[in-house]
Amino acid sequence: MYEIARGLEGVVLTGTRLSHVDGERGELIIGGYPVDELAPNATFEEVLYLLWHGRLPLSAEAEEIARSMAAQRDVPPVTMALLRAAAERRLPTMDALRVAVGTLALAVPAANGKRETQVRLAESLVARFPPIIATYWHLLHGEPLVAPDANLGHVANYLYMLRGTRPDAEEARALETYFNTVVDHSMNASTFAARVITSTRSDMVSALEGAVGALKGQLHGGAPGPALDMVFEIRERAAHSGRSLETEAEMWIREALARGERLMGFGHRVYKVRDPRADVLAAASTRLFARAGDRDLYRDASIVEKVVIRLLHEAKPERRLDTNVEYYTALLLHGIGQPSDLFSPTFAAARAGGWTAHVLEQIAEDRIIRPSSTYIGESHPRWTPMADRV
Amino acid sequence: MYEIARGLEGVVLTGTRLSHVDGERGELIIGGYPVDELAPNATFEEVLYLLWHGRLPLSAEAEEIARSMAAQRDVPPVTMALLRAAAERRLPTMDALRVAVGTLALAVPAANGKRETQVRLAESLVARFPPIIATYWHLLHGEPLVAPDANLGHVANYLYMLRGTRPDAEEARALETYFNTVVDHSMNASTFAARVITSTRSDMVSALEGAVGALKGQLHGGAPGPALDMVFEIRERAAHSGRSLETEAEMWIREALARGERLMGFGHRVYKVRDPRADVLAAASTRLFARAGDRDLYRDASIVEKVVIRLLHEAKPERRLDTNVEYYTALLLHGIGQPSDLFSPTFAAARAGGWTAHVLEQIAEDRIIRPSSTYIGESHPRWTPMADRV
Repeated sequence: MYEIARGLEGVVLTGTRLSHVDGERGELIIGGYPVDELAPNATFEEVLYLLWHGRLPLSAEAEEIARSMAAQRDVPPVTMALLRAAAERRLPTMDALRVAVGTLALAVPAANGKRETQVRLAESLVARFPPIIATYWHLLHGEPLVAPDANLGHVANYLYMLRGTRPDAEEARALETYFNTVVDHSMNASTFAARVITSTRSDMVSALEGAVGALKGQLHGGAPGPALDMVFEIRERAAHSGRSLETEAEMWIREALARGERLMGFGHRVYKVRDPRADVLAAASTRLFARAGDRDLYRDASIVEKVVIRLLHEAKPERRLDTNVEYYTALLLHGIGQPSDLFSPTFAAARAGGWTAHVLEQIAEDRIIRPSSTYIGESHPRWTPMADRV
Repeated sequence: MYEIARGLEGVVLTGTRLSHVDGERGELIIGGYPVDELAPNATFEEVLYLLWHGRLPLSAEAEEIARSMAAQRDVPPVTMALLRAAAERRLPTMDALRVAVGTLALAVPAANGKRETQVRLAESLVARFPPIIATYWHLLHGEPLVAPDANLGHVANYLYMLRGTRPDAEEARALETYFNTVVDHSMNASTFAARVITSTRSDMVSALEGAVGALKGQLHGGAPGPALDMVFEIRERAAHSGRSLETEAEMWIREALARGERLMGFGHRVYKVRDPRADVLAAASTRLFARAGDRDLYRDASIVEKVVIRLLHEAKPERRLDTNVEYYTALLLHGIGQPSDLFSPTFAAARAGGWTAHVLEQIAEDRIIRPSSTYIGESHPRWTPMADRV
């Protein structure tokens, strides 16, 4: 009898230079830098360069990658036609993104085996995620499309293409910090899917398409859809009852805990101590809301958060259940006006950087990834003709 | 230090009821039946039913699945538009198939969690692989399209849609035996990709799209492109030299072995003894060519095969290097007139049955699949501003 490694938990696939998650110590290293050093300081293009080339770019290199990516923000005609058809059928944005990324095989030059060519391909694919998402969003809502602005960086242009107005610098910086924070997280399921596909010597478009497909599943962490729903519900109640938000929060949370519910936005599977991404995004949120964004939301979310932490500590003093990355992500993205239907696509646009970097690593490793299975089915020695079936 | 399971070799992911590969004993079980019992006797629809439901269908059930799948052979308009755009850009057929499968998300009803609904979805997706491939093939070659014929079975209709004429019964049976033989092969890389994507609770279309992407990589076994190229080359030489095919084969193969080349179509990574699929396809080929198909090719391939086996045994008497599944696949598919550019898509059309069945198993297992990685990169304690980079 074999030992079965269900879900591959605890199985170490390979070494990576891209990121390191230490859940016991609450550390995340991206491209050699602690996430709290890298994320608030770098542009997203610098982080991409770091992941693809193994070091931060020099000044001319940083200008070159920014210029090159800014020049590749078109949505190719065949992709556009597909997005229009998808919008007519009200396809969810993640599905539209997945199929649209697949169509980029028709638009981008096929990459040969050379690493430099593959990096160019990564640039041209990652560059198109925000334009695809923003374009689809407008198609879905019957709004006029917004052409990209080559004078803006990758992340600021995403905000611009979503809104049609140039974003406030604080908002762009907050979103850029989010992109950098979630760009990579070692061997998560979508990244792993990209590596499995690449491992047969398939191409980068196929790998990204598979990764988007994996990311959209609800068991894939990091997509913070409902993390702030609690705050919105408590707000609503307080508006009706006339009680203070804090009082209403305490009532709501005590009820939820009494029903044994898990509170969204608190706790994490891997991190036994505080998720370092939560700190980075909390700091980014604080900076954002000091100058811009929806400040009422920030105030209310902070009040609710304090009540949750106090009551969780009271209910489960032996466990450390801290605010997690989803909570601050939702706060940050809601704060700059993103509806929650855009959270997963925005996450995908950021994680595309990590996916492409892992594809490059996997191309260099050039080894097929496939585990075994054990057979638990029946065994009939002979074919059963129709007349003998029961 | 962790032990690293490179390529996940030797790691057992899970139990499956779908197929069992015993490389030491040269056995392949599909849905409980030895491949040589199942493949030549079943219709492909029966095999699908077996994989999806865990038993062979009764008469009414067999009629129902055949009827249901025959009714779902349309290429949806959005898929058709994409195929036309892909053909204009001369996209390889596997890439077109991958993107086209992705677009089925716009055409098929989204499946909820119920197994019966998921099986219906599997039917409607697998049913459309052959029509997509045949349609794209005609678009790519500027040929008129062929509408499906609901009176033909899944495999015979594929041949019909490729050719525009009803296939000979022997040819349809040969291709159906091929479909059944390669429908599943335990945890191969494309099937594994489908399971990884499904494991996040993503959807079946995403899983199949990822699987097609993985299948197209050249390290994925089973796609027998160049297995008969040797035969074609030797034929060519014999036609010019006037020597017999056997003499020319002996010269060609001795030269290749002297150069240390691996002979395509012989030997297998997993099977230490004869690949059982090779036997099934050899028998299917013999039956086919007794009545139909390109009989000159069969004769020539048999002559070359005998010379290869003799010379391999002479050169490496300690190893058992037998004719493998690729050789007979190429013989069978070439024999019914398929050009080698269609081999991988045809393989995908067959394997789609296994993919969907593994997706159903994975949905039932409902556990995320993700291994770990170990960090081998650098570690900088602080952010490096642009001016400090060297």
